[in-house]
Amino acid sequence: MTTDKAGIVETLVSRLGDSGVLRDDDALSRYTHDWAGDALGTPLAVVRPRTTDEVADIVRLCNEHDLRMVPQGGHTGLVGGAFPDRDQDELIISLERMNRIRDLDPVNFSMTVDAGCILEEVKQAADTEDCDFPLSLGAQGSCQIGGNIATNAGGLNVLRYGMMRELVLGLEVVLPNGEIWDGLSALHKDNRGYDLAQLFLGSEGTLGIVTGAVLKLVPKAEQTRTALLGLPSVAAVIELYTLARRGCSDLLSAFELIPRRCIELAMEASPQLSDPLDEAYPWYVLMEVAATGPIDLSEMLERLLENGMEKDLVLDGALASSDAQSQNLWQFRESMLEGQRLKGKHLRTDVSVPISAIPDFVDRAAVMVSDVSPDSTVIAYGHIGDGNLHFNILPPPDTSNEERRVLLHDLEQRLFAILDEFRGSISAEHGIGRTKQAAYLARLSPTERELMQGIKSLFDPKGVMSRGRILPE
Amino acid sequence: MTTDKAGIVETLVSRLGDSGVLRDDDALSRYTHDWAGDALGTPLAVVRPRTTDEVADIVRLCNEHDLRMVPQGGHTGLVGGAFPDRDQDELIISLERMNRIRDLDPVNFSMTVDAGCILEEVKQAADTEDCDFPLSLGAQGSCQIGGNIATNAGGLNVLRYGMMRELVLGLEVVLPNGEIWDGLSALHKDNRGYDLAQLFLGSEGTLGIVTGAVLKLVPKAEQTRTALLGLPSVAAVIELYTLARRGCSDLLSAFELIPRRCIELAMEASPQLSDPLDEAYPWYVLMEVAATGPIDLSEMLERLLENGMEKDLVLDGALASSDAQSQNLWQFRESMLEGQRLKGKHLRTDVSVPISAIPDFVDRAAVMVSDVSPDSTVIAYGHIGDGNLHFNILPPPDTSNEERRVLLHDLEQRLFAILDEFRGSISAEHGIGRTKQAAYLARLSPTERELMQGIKSLFDPKGVMSRGRILPE
Repeated sequence: MTTDKAGIVETLVSRLGDSGVLRDDDALSRYTHDWAGDALGTPLAVVRPRTTDEVADIVRLCNEHDLRMVPQGGHTGLVGGAFPDRDQDELIISLERMNRIRDLDPVNFSMTVDAGCILEEVKQAADTEDCDFPLSLGAQGSCQIGGNIATNAGGLNVLRYGMMRELVLGLEVVLPNGEIWDGLSALHKDNRGYDLAQLFLGSEGTLGIVTGAVLKLVPKAEQTRTALLGLPSVAAVIELYTLARRGCSDLLSAFELIPRRCIELAMEASPQLSDPLDEAYPWYVLMEVAATGPIDLSEMLERLLENGMEKDLVLDGALASSDAQSQNLWQFRESMLEGQRLKGKHLRTDVSVPISAIPDFVDRAAVMVSDVSPDSTVIAYGHIGDGNLHFNILPPPDTSNEERRVLLHDLEQRLFAILDEFRGSISAEHGIGRTKQAAYLARLSPTERELMQGIKSLFDPKGVMSRGRILPE
Repeated sequence: MTTDKAGIVETLVSRLGDSGVLRDDDALSRYTHDWAGDALGTPLAVVRPRTTDEVADIVRLCNEHDLRMVPQGGHTGLVGGAFPDRDQDELIISLERMNRIRDLDPVNFSMTVDAGCILEEVKQAADTEDCDFPLSLGAQGSCQIGGNIATNAGGLNVLRYGMMRELVLGLEVVLPNGEIWDGLSALHKDNRGYDLAQLFLGSEGTLGIVTGAVLKLVPKAEQTRTALLGLPSVAAVIELYTLARRGCSDLLSAFELIPRRCIELAMEASPQLSDPLDEAYPWYVLMEVAATGPIDLSEMLERLLENGMEKDLVLDGALASSDAQSQNLWQFRESMLEGQRLKGKHLRTDVSVPISAIPDFVDRAAVMVSDVSPDSTVIAYGHIGDGNLHFNILPPPDTSNEERRVLLHDLEQRLFAILDEFRGSISAEHGIGRTKQAAYLARLSPTERELMQGIKSLFDPKGVMSRGRILPE
C-alpha cells in the first residue's frame, strides 16, 4: 500500500484539532533537537494526544496505513531513540499533553500517572503525601515517566531503590496495532503468566507506547546526610563501598566515584565552588545516607569515616551538617557535567562491569588510553554500587573536529574490547537507540538476536513502531 | 513423526549412564509426589544431568523427537507445574545433581550457582562471606534455585528485598530447542535490548530450563528484632503498617498478618506453645526489623509500639529480647500451617489486592463466607507489605470429602469474583501451573492471551517444554 502521508495527517488534524497536530517548521523545531542540541531528521508531523484513546486511534490509523511512528517524551534520551533520522518519514507521537496524576495511594505506597508526567512533578506530587518516587536523574526537570519506563532509567539512587524496572507496579500500553493493553495493576505481587510489563521496560518505544503507569513509592526521607571523601585509589573506593554497605545497612542511597579531574572541571564551570577538602586527592566519593525513624545518621557516617581512615582508605572527608552544605557537595557532581561540556567534543560512555572488577577495568582502560593518545584526559566517574562508570575521554585540546572524531571512535572501540573481557555492558543505563546499535549488534549472539527479533515481530509485525531503534530496520 | 519413546530413553541411558536415568517404579515414586503428597502422573523416566551441556543434549534429543519434557526442582511447587499429569508421556528433567556453587563474590554482592542448588545451601554459602541471599521461604530446606526462578518465588521478606525477579542478575538457560542461552551476567545494571532474563522469571518451565543463575546478595544482618503485636482490626493492622514503613526506614523485613484462629491452630499443632500475649486479640502482627551498623533496633520497635498504642492500633505486644524468643514467635507462623493441615481438606488461596484495599476485601470476603457457609472458618493471613493474603477457609468438620470439594470450589469461585472487583490477583506468588489455569484463563483478555501464546510459540514452537502449564495444550 502506498502511504498517503498527507492524507493521514489531514485525518489526524480533523480528529485532534490544530493544536493536536504540529506541522510547520517553527513548531517542529522543538521536537527535532535532542538533549545535546544535535538536530536530527524532521518528522512528518508531531501529534499531541490528550488521552489513551486518542493515542490508540492515532496508532491504529498509522498501523493500517503502514506509517511509521515514534513516541517521544522529554527529549532527554542519549542514544537518539526518540528522534527521526530522516525527513518526512515518521510521525512523532508526543505524550506531553498526557500529564495527569491519576491517583495517589499513600497506604499502598503507589501512584498512577499519565506517561507524559514530568519526573519532577511526579516527585512533587508524591511529596504531598510525605512519600517519594525515588528515581533521581539529572534530567528530572524535563524527562517524562513514559521515557523513563521505555529506557528503564537509572540515575543516582539505583543502589538503594533499583532501576525503573523495580519501581513500576503496572503499565498501560498502546500496542503497535492500536489495541490498549490494560496492565495498570497496583499489586505489589502478582505471579500470573509471563510478566508483559517487563518487556516494555527498556524496550525504547519499539513494542508499544506506554500511556500510563502505576509507580511504587517510598516514605519520604526525614533526614539525609551527605559526605565527600578523598581516597588514594579506585581499589580503596571499592573497599570503602563494601564497608559502607555493611556500616549503613540499607540506608545508603548514593555512592558516586569522582576523579580529581572532575572536581577541577566542576570548579572551572562553577567558579563559586572552592576545593572541597584541604588537599587534592586522586579520587573522591560523594555518598549519601537517608532514613526515616530514630536513626543517628551522623554517627553512622562518622563511624564509617573513622573506620575508613583506620584502614587508610579514606584520607580526608567533609560531612555536610546542613542542607546547604549538602547541596554544595552535590554541586560538584552537577557542575562537573557542565565542565565536560565546555571542553567540546569528547568521548562519553556508559559502561558497567561487576563492582569487584572496577579497579582492574579502570587500570586497563587508562593504560590503553595513555598508549594510544597520551595527551588525552581520562575522566572516569560513576555509580559504584551499580558497577556503572561513565568512562569519558577528553581529547587533546588542539585537535581538529575531524581528528577528534577519528580518535574518539578508535578509543571507544578499544575501550569496548577491554570491556568484553570483563563481560561488561556497553550500555549500562542509556540504552541502545540508534547511536549504540552497531556496537550492540556486534556483541549479540545469533540466539539472542533471533529471540529479540521474534519479540519485536510478535508485538509489531509490520514494523511501524520506532523502527530501526535497538534492532536494525 | 512417531516418537520412539523407549528408544529415546535407551539413548539417554547410553549417554548419562544408569544413575542418570531412573525408570523403575520405586525410583520414580520420589519424583511423582508433590509437596502436598498427591500422586500425579508417572513420567516416562527421570533424567538427572550433571552439567548444562548434558541438559542441552537431552533437550535437543527430545525436541528432535517431539518428546515432551518437564524440568523439576525441589517438588515444593503448589500448582502442579513440575509433575506429569498422565502416564508415560513426559520426561522429567531433574536438576538435583546440578548443585554447585560456581562463584561467590562478596565485593560485587553476587554469587553464581547451578540451578539445582537448594535455597538453604545457597544461603549458607553466602553466610560464609558474611552475606545473605534474602529469599526466605518455608520450603527453603528443599526448594531449588531453578524452581525459585521459574516460579518467581516470594516468601517472607519480599517487603524489603523483592521477589526472585529482583534478586537475579543473570541466567543461563537451555532453550526448548537445546541451545544454551548464556545470560550469566553479574552486572547490576545493563540496558541492552529486551531483558530476556525477565521472561524466564515466572515462566514456570514453559520457555526453557534454567541451569544457572547469578544471584544478588545483601550484607548479612548483624542484628534482628522481632515483635508480636495484638490489634483490634485489619484496618488497624494496615494503619500500623504505614507507621512501620515510616518508623523503621527500609529496615522492615517482615510484617505478617495472623488472625486469632491461626494462633490457636499453632498451639493445637505445637502444644509446647502457650498464648503469646496475656489476652487473646482478634488480629496479630508478627514483624521483624534487621540491620547492620550502628542502629538501635530495640528503640526503633519500642517507639513504634508506643506510637501504635497511643493511636489505639496496638493493644498489646511482645518484643523478643533474644534469638530464642524470636524463634519462639516465628514458631507460631510455622506451626499454624501444620495446624491447618491437621484440619483436612480446606480451601487454600494465594491472592493479592492493593494494600489499601485489604480491610475492605477481608470484610467482603468474610461476609460472603458466612452467608454461604456459616459454619466454615475463615483464616486470612499473609504478607501485608505485599498485599498478599492466604485467605483460607476450613469447612465445617463434619462434612464429607465430596461435600467439601463442592463447597470449597463454590467458595473459591465467589472469592475470586470479589477479588475481580478489587483488580486483585488469583495467584500472588504460587503461579498458575495446572491447578489455577482455568481461573487464570477466564480472566485473561484476548490481547493478553495472544501475546502470551506468541511468546510461548517463539521460544517453544513445537510445544515440547512443560506443555499445558500456564497456557492450555
